[in-house]
Amino acid sequence: MGQLLRVQNFMLSADGFGSGEGQSIDRPFGHADPTALAAWAIPTASWPGRTEPGGTRGIDDYFVRDFHHGIGAEIMGRNKFGPQRGPWANHDWTGWWGDSPPFHTPVLVLTHHPRPSFTLDDTTFHFIDATPAEALQQARSAANGKDVRLGGGVATVRQFLDADLVDTLHVAVVPVELGRGERLWHSPDELDDRFHHESTASPSGVVHHVFWRR
Amino acid sequence: MGQLLRVQNFMLSADGFGSGEGQSIDRPFGHADPTALAAWAIPTASWPGRTEPGGTRGIDDYFVRDFHHGIGAEIMGRNKFGPQRGPWANHDWTGWWGDSPPFHTPVLVLTHHPRPSFTLDDTTFHFIDATPAEALQQARSAANGKDVRLGGGVATVRQFLDADLVDTLHVAVVPVELGRGERLWHSPDELDDRFHHESTASPSGVVHHVFWRR
Repeated sequence: MGQLLRVQNFMLSADGFGSGEGQSIDRPFGHADPTALAAWAIPTASWPGRTEPGGTRGIDDYFVRDFHHGIGAEIMGRNKFGPQRGPWANHDWTGWWGDSPPFHTPVLVLTHHPRPSFTLDDTTFHFIDATPAEALQQARSAANGKDVRLGGGVATVRQFLDADLVDTLHVAVVPVELGRGERLWHSPDELDDRFHHESTASPSGVVHHVFWRR
Repeated sequence: MGQLLRVQNFMLSADGFGSGEGQSIDRPFGHADPTALAAWAIPTASWPGRTEPGGTRGIDDYFVRDFHHGIGAEIMGRNKFGPQRGPWANHDWTGWWGDSPPFHTPVLVLTHHPRPSFTLDDTTFHFIDATPAEALQQARSAANGKDVRLGGGVATVRQFLDADLVDTLHVAVVPVELGRGERLWHSPDELDDRFHHESTASPSGVVHHVFWRR
């Protein structure tokens, strides 16, 4: 079935924003509260940040656990990797995720300012200046036959949608309003010309939207 | 998080039956039509019997694809394995699934009439006369650290529920009525004293019920 490009567990406000305004080192999602966006996912058994046993195994957990299944590489934009803009002042910044990032595969960071690759635990970050199509080709090669996850942020997802490279999307629409920020859509129906689209409401209050290429 | 015992993609009629009456070599589900029970699953991309590329990747596919994830062994009852009863006349019968069964792990078949193990493709069938607790211990050992799937049929699922050995269940309730046969429940709420319980309706008309131990 080939190597799909998949968006997984992409969290969006009810008014269509994936991130708030004003990203900084203390506010990776700007004025948005990431724990509010992820409130449906954090209690699940499969949440990557879980350190204790237990956790829920309901509908939400089905989506959370699919984050890793069959994935061999991730592509992310530079603004998901860090708050810096322009040339790197130094290479001290190694991402938001500490010593054990939740990816466990090669990660390709799209940037006009490449820097040397480095490895944390079982995640290796590579920095490439490439078009979406070129980046996908490199990621497929790195994924060793598995699928590639498109990790975001919003601008990166939009670029790959515009280039018609995305095969499946799972977007979790959360019952919070952000008012401003990085907008993915005005309405989930905007993708219906190119994708099959199903949605299901979870008891947590989240609506899971699933899309796959027509 | 230990090795869970999981019921996955267990298909049930709207009136609570997992199988019809009158199992025979031509009718593994008795008077029930297995393609009607599985009508929601067969079109999905992850359906184990799929031979062509393509298939849907909506809500139903999330459940279908979880059938294999993290599973290292299956336990099934003898009536899932075949229509024979009592001592084996011979060992010619190797299951309903042809040369490439959809399990791809060790399978422990519970029977009072053990017979020699055999392997088809990457599935090995073992036949054991054991209590549910003993069978689960053997399956965990065979699963190499992974979870164990409880494959059914209904009587087997009920035995393991009665012994309080089941950690999670996914039951897909299909919009067909059978009237008689092997009954799992009168109502899905019967398990609510021991399990958390969530349900979600799929566009296909199936209702997915998910349970996990309290």
